[in-house]
Amino acid sequence: MLVMDVGSTKGDVIEAARRGLQDQLGAFVPAHPIAGKELSGVEHADAGLYAGRQVVLTPIKATRRSNVQRATQVWTGVGAKVVTMTAEAHDSAFAAVSHLPHLLAFAFVKAITAQPDGHRFLELAGPGFRDFTRIAAGDPAMWRDVLLANRDQVLQHSLAFRAALSQFEALMNAGDTQGLEDAIAAASRVRSKWHPGAAASPD
Amino acid sequence: MLVMDVGSTKGDVIEAARRGLQDQLGAFVPAHPIAGKELSGVEHADAGLYAGRQVVLTPIKATRRSNVQRATQVWTGVGAKVVTMTAEAHDSAFAAVSHLPHLLAFAFVKAITAQPDGHRFLELAGPGFRDFTRIAAGDPAMWRDVLLANRDQVLQHSLAFRAALSQFEALMNAGDTQGLEDAIAAASRVRSKWHPGAAASPD
Repeated sequence: MLVMDVGSTKGDVIEAARRGLQDQLGAFVPAHPIAGKELSGVEHADAGLYAGRQVVLTPIKATRRSNVQRATQVWTGVGAKVVTMTAEAHDSAFAAVSHLPHLLAFAFVKAITAQPDGHRFLELAGPGFRDFTRIAAGDPAMWRDVLLANRDQVLQHSLAFRAALSQFEALMNAGDTQGLEDAIAAASRVRSKWHPGAAASPD
Repeated sequence: MLVMDVGSTKGDVIEAARRGLQDQLGAFVPAHPIAGKELSGVEHADAGLYAGRQVVLTPIKATRRSNVQRATQVWTGVGAKVVTMTAEAHDSAFAAVSHLPHLLAFAFVKAITAQPDGHRFLELAGPGFRDFTRIAAGDPAMWRDVLLANRDQVLQHSLAFRAALSQFEALMNAGDTQGLEDAIAAASRVRSKWHPGAAASPD
């Protein structure tokens, strides 16, 4: 028997597996494929969804080694590249690069629509808005669970984000043209060089 | 003579035109095409860039009507759809749907890279991160100018964003599963229904 999940948080799933699987816990390989859509449901299935994507496995002490190998074969078989790490390292990293961006996108859309002219603003939005907010269309029940399961890590990364935002705003308030350009340039360089992991897909 | 700009802010450009064009001010039609790339320079030119996109014209009192018509013909000729409004309405709307998202994306990338494990985090980032941060690769000199030219509006919308973020965080801290799901669902519905203006492109 091989049991896997495909959730975006691992610490909470491992706790649930300990309770639910008990003496079968060795069969469990916690898994998180770094791929997805803002659409849920079997009618949006896509056979190529995992091609070229990373899948993170976070085996625990109890996990049988043979099952980690079988899990790796399953994911490699659908074209994914497997990475292994601890559940703690996983949950911290994904709070930063996935869960927090979702929270920010939800909050951003809420802030726009809460304004009297919000709907007029949305009519004028372009491709930048389209991409920045794509993840705000995510499944509410799923993202409620993710944000609550990984709450402490997400809130910690949110604090770091607010501090960075305050730094940019201070440069704007000071009219510090060179400082603001330098700060934007540093972010722009990082993002321009970035590509999706070692398992980069062409887009 | 017809003079147009294609800047992302209009109030400051109009001020500059008043100083620079003087008795030729009637020739000036302030323009903002809602299209672009995170790449600048003529080597990234794209003849289809404006097809199906909106272009906002913000004529001032001094602008000759015949020039607004000629400007409209130019933009319609490259496939764009023309919208007309005041410079003030433009600058408020674009602070909300374009300038603030850029500021947030710059701050988010800065916050990640400022952390000891930031570069490891980036290796794990997936398609959500890719789209959310695409605009963080924007041209530093251009975005420095936009954020400073429209500073007051951007900072005001940033305050509204922080308030919305605090509301989400309060729901997380309270463990309010239903409240959090409702808040996410409201944002998700807005974003799912959204498409780029009346001049929606197929993507």
